[in-house]
Amino acid sequence: KRSVKRWGVTLVVGIIQGSIAYFCNMLTRSLSAVKWDHVYQALQDERTGDAWAGKGYFIFLFYQTLFVSVASLMVYIEPVSAGSGIPEVKCFLNGIAIPRIVRLKTLFCKVFGVTFSVAAGLPVGKEGPMVHSGAVVASSVSQGKTSVFGYDTSFTKIDDFRNDREKRDFVACGAAAGVCSAFSAPIGGVLFALEEGASYWSTKLTWRVFFCSMMTLLTLYTWKNLDSWWGQASTEKLFSFGEFTSFDSGAVNFSIWELFLFVIIGCLGGLIGAVFNASNEQITIWRMKHVNKSQLRRFLEVLCISFIVTTVSFIMPMVWGRCTELPVDVEDWSEQEKELVEALVPFKCVKGKEYNEVASLIFTDADDAIKQLFHFREAGEDDISTFSSAALFLFFLPYISLATIVYGIAVPSGLFVPSLLSGAAFGRLCGHLLHKLDHTHGTFADSGSYALMGAAAVLGGMARMTISLTVILLEATGDMQYVLPLMLTLMAARFTGNVFNEGLYDIHIHLKRIPFMDQDVPEIAEHHEIVANQVMSADVKCIRPVERVGVLHDLLSQHGHSNFPIVDEHGTLYGTAGRNMLYPTVQDCVLEPSDRSCFVDLRPYANTAAYTINETASIQRTYRLFRTLGLRHLCVCNHNNQVVGIITRKDLLPEALLESLLRVRRTGPARG
Amino acid sequence: KRSVKRWGVTLVVGIIQGSIAYFCNMLTRSLSAVKWDHVYQALQDERTGDAWAGKGYFIFLFYQTLFVSVASLMVYIEPVSAGSGIPEVKCFLNGIAIPRIVRLKTLFCKVFGVTFSVAAGLPVGKEGPMVHSGAVVASSVSQGKTSVFGYDTSFTKIDDFRNDREKRDFVACGAAAGVCSAFSAPIGGVLFALEEGASYWSTKLTWRVFFCSMMTLLTLYTWKNLDSWWGQASTEKLFSFGEFTSFDSGAVNFSIWELFLFVIIGCLGGLIGAVFNASNEQITIWRMKHVNKSQLRRFLEVLCISFIVTTVSFIMPMVWGRCTELPVDVEDWSEQEKELVEALVPFKCVKGKEYNEVASLIFTDADDAIKQLFHFREAGEDDISTFSSAALFLFFLPYISLATIVYGIAVPSGLFVPSLLSGAAFGRLCGHLLHKLDHTHGTFADSGSYALMGAAAVLGGMARMTISLTVILLEATGDMQYVLPLMLTLMAARFTGNVFNEGLYDIHIHLKRIPFMDQDVPEIAEHHEIVANQVMSADVKCIRPVERVGVLHDLLSQHGHSNFPIVDEHGTLYGTAGRNMLYPTVQDCVLEPSDRSCFVDLRPYANTAAYTINETASIQRTYRLFRTLGLRHLCVCNHNNQVVGIITRKDLLPEALLESLLRVRRTGPARG
Repeated sequence: KRSVKRWGVTLVVGIIQGSIAYFCNMLTRSLSAVKWDHVYQALQDERTGDAWAGKGYFIFLFYQTLFVSVASLMVYIEPVSAGSGIPEVKCFLNGIAIPRIVRLKTLFCKVFGVTFSVAAGLPVGKEGPMVHSGAVVASSVSQGKTSVFGYDTSFTKIDDFRNDREKRDFVACGAAAGVCSAFSAPIGGVLFALEEGASYWSTKLTWRVFFCSMMTLLTLYTWKNLDSWWGQASTEKLFSFGEFTSFDSGAVNFSIWELFLFVIIGCLGGLIGAVFNASNEQITIWRMKHVNKSQLRRFLEVLCISFIVTTVSFIMPMVWGRCTELPVDVEDWSEQEKELVEALVPFKCVKGKEYNEVASLIFTDADDAIKQLFHFREAGEDDISTFSSAALFLFFLPYISLATIVYGIAVPSGLFVPSLLSGAAFGRLCGHLLHKLDHTHGTFADSGSYALMGAAAVLGGMARMTISLTVILLEATGDMQYVLPLMLTLMAARFTGNVFNEGLYDIHIHLKRIPFMDQDVPEIAEHHEIVANQVMSADVKCIRPVERVGVLHDLLSQHGHSNFPIVDEHGTLYGTAGRNMLYPTVQDCVLEPSDRSCFVDLRPYANTAAYTINETASIQRTYRLFRTLGLRHLCVCNHNNQVVGIITRKDLLPEALLESLLRVRRTGPARG
Repeated sequence: KRSVKRWGVTLVVGIIQGSIAYFCNMLTRSLSAVKWDHVYQALQDERTGDAWAGKGYFIFLFYQTLFVSVASLMVYIEPVSAGSGIPEVKCFLNGIAIPRIVRLKTLFCKVFGVTFSVAAGLPVGKEGPMVHSGAVVASSVSQGKTSVFGYDTSFTKIDDFRNDREKRDFVACGAAAGVCSAFSAPIGGVLFALEEGASYWSTKLTWRVFFCSMMTLLTLYTWKNLDSWWGQASTEKLFSFGEFTSFDSGAVNFSIWELFLFVIIGCLGGLIGAVFNASNEQITIWRMKHVNKSQLRRFLEVLCISFIVTTVSFIMPMVWGRCTELPVDVEDWSEQEKELVEALVPFKCVKGKEYNEVASLIFTDADDAIKQLFHFREAGEDDISTFSSAALFLFFLPYISLATIVYGIAVPSGLFVPSLLSGAAFGRLCGHLLHKLDHTHGTFADSGSYALMGAAAVLGGMARMTISLTVILLEATGDMQYVLPLMLTLMAARFTGNVFNEGLYDIHIHLKRIPFMDQDVPEIAEHHEIVANQVMSADVKCIRPVERVGVLHDLLSQHGHSNFPIVDEHGTLYGTAGRNMLYPTVQDCVLEPSDRSCFVDLRPYANTAAYTINETASIQRTYRLFRTLGLRHLCVCNHNNQVVGIITRKDLLPEALLESLLRVRRTGPARG
């Protein structure tokens, strides 16, 4: 019966997250449509002389500032809703509780904020925040309690899910639903949740995550097809790379030897990603020191950067300043390409006849820009193409620079779409350069395939996610012919990037000094022999099986530990007692000072089978025990089962290990 | 440097497995082409009267018997090469060593045998054996030693990989390569390896598995495209469902509400799978009792069943006995469909004008038959279709019955293709029945989509694999529009099937009495409170830190345990000593009887940080420790760290738990 309830809650999570993603997407589109309509109109008026020069810019600036302010206001209301949310979800699944991260208020601020920050046309995506949103939905629905409205909603009677493990499982479901709603990639979502969260892969949990993803996708489909419920469903997704077509039926769009070129693009993408990460790390460090301390400064920074983005966005097409004629011989083009032609932006050119190449990339929604880069076919025989190499370059460099600066300001912002867009521009540029060598014999694949590889390479170089990213990209591409090139490119990008630094999410997690445990044992432990008693803290606060209330009370109020070992008179471990279990026991007794000397028998409450580790155990073994079982602390015992120390997550981080190693070399084991 | 070597070995594994799969596939095709050529010729001769009636049947029978005998001979040479190999690989990855399963001899027999058993036209696939083959390749290459040729190939100098963990990691890579080579599904392969093998998901291992898969796919592509290395690569895969086309561009081939129908098909497929599994279980039990004891009986059984299959295969088209005209208005059909039309079998009809519907499904390679069921479009307006409902039914029922009987006989045989083929026939039949209701308004999806769902449903109902199966099917389908229907169908099939029995692979593992640990804690442990000291075996063979050689020698020769706890005079656990470590120590000393009373100090050799568990620990916790860390045994200690018992894998199987529970209720804790 409890199992049925659990599935029910999972179903609800999927449906709610799907709906949130759908409406967030609709709202963003409406908002930016309003903005672009006014701006385009003003620009056309400027050209014909119906409006004063610069009107377009000011309308643009007005909308940008308005939207960005709303987004920043949300972060003012709930500071943790800034940024992508993926690092936070990773930490939560890793077993670290970050305050307020799964509150309903955070959900509201994040979703509403990202809607506006995307509509503002900043180089941000809404994919990361959607993952966060899914996690919050799952946590809220399953826990049935929120402090926003000031009352306890435990009347929902699902409070039997109120423990760490259940909550973590639900959040894993929610994260999968989030990925699914962001990328329409259900399998990618499941893999993301498993890769990040499940130290212990249980079949049942996998199925629940799977189910949650499916329900999200089903909800999205249903919303999309409300009008055509009985007809053939539309394939249009919230997020998609469009339909890749094979130019020859039964053959893929690239030749085998080009895989080497794709690997090179992967390496270059890894380099770009590494530079991106390094720059963003430096900017974030500076920002933490000088900006983040005051809410006002954060807000001013947002306004300031929004102004820069607006101005640069406006100047780039002006610098380009050329009008290109719209392609005319489009009879044999596919539906999709015809639609994309309509999305080309005239800027200050003749509407319906010409377009500005740079403006077409900047003045559209990022999704459309990505599709344009992926799908416009090269004209082939001559050197004419929809986007010239120079325009791509003029777009790529400022865009990725702005993206570097923007990630980390006080608005909810994702990083997938900016990486993909700049990567696509980079990849298409590579394609162009290759076509310069030979564009008549069909030696090289079309530039669209190169754009796809570039997008994967830069995204892979930035995020360094493993298999889930491949699957997400494959699902967005929707065409299995790209499986091998995508895998190779992502792998090359990851390896190249890892030579220089970590993935951006890990950088941010480490900058925040969160005791996040990576999947692999830190390298230092592999090169040096370290054992448990060298890293443990010997200063253990133990309690006796039968203890005075006063002692307990003092212990609880002086130390924040969540668990205390119970040892008998010989120092032998009897068990552990949790803070949340000791607290009520003590609280009942300390009403009067005379009660302080009362004894309380803790034996019935103790967890007598706590995990322990021998003091001579290697650090590898300790680390694996922590990571696989999601522990927060571990008692270290000697051969007589006497407690000699305690190890927490923090003791196992690479820096702490290094410190322990140096101390051991200097003085000897165990700190006092 | 060791890491580079490791990657190098992984690369070699991928390349070898890809090549094996390619050549195995080519050989099968050539063999069956020879067979069909002769049979078709004879059948045509019979029709025109150039040959005596029944010549076709006898030629068919001759080839069948010949091929089947070769396949069975391979199993005679190496008995463990019978069957699918997937259960064995699962066990290996689970941490159980089955003798001879990863020998080079097994590889040869399996690959050669399955080539012939598939060519013989038995309802078997070569996908399972390919997975096994990948595992053996990985093990052989990484261990660099084989006893087939009688000499030690450790000159390959990669013997630093000779430990359980490395070997298991390599086998995981190999299994992924196997899945990839069988289905051209690299991501599915990675997921299969992770799902089955990796209790502890390490990022590094994931990437190696990923890399191995990729290299296999690259090898396959390269072999395929040797002639067109510089041109556009062919998409043709070794195993593929063919190209699914969207009938309307930008729309999927089904409507949202049809997802409910797909779920129903999933449930029906689950039922069919459950019946299949139950029947096969009964047959296998019977076979284990009456056949498997003698090699001769096994061989005779193979011949006998081969005769039945041949006869039934021949009778079915005769029973059908109708000639259908080949479709003529094929101008607007796709290339693929035109090719499939050519593959239709005339049997005893006029060649090039007519075909026999049932024979077209039976007298072709199973891959082609699956493609036919998936891709022939319904004629639409009228009731004419390539395969009529009656023909599908006449094919489905005997085929799945034969498949039930065949799995388990002494030939290497996989189960994926038979399940897919019978499922496709079943699904297409469902599609037909629905089209009977309404076939003019396009209410229902085309029968091809229903065939795909049916195939997924029956396969899911039989194998009950989780997410990896979905991905494998998706990759084979090559079209992301089917992701939601496939997921729903597979999930429905799994749930329905699980009501009745387990997946077929698990059934076979349990029939073989292998202590396989499922991912989830047995249900009995969730309903009853069981603690470690109730299931443990209290009869522990302990040794002292300084022990007499004679005692050690007797212990080693009398007990097969792989590890012995070392306890001091108070019974406190000092550490454990492995058999492979004690053995050389003892062997040096027992040359003369007088040495028996010598003492040997075991302390330097002991593993002082062995995992232990407290006797009061719950069985859930014990199980998770075993499963996540891949343990084979675990010392149970009391609060004073004194060894009170030992738990092995066998003690944690559901039956053993039930037994312990009953014993505890009767007498009290711990067996003597």
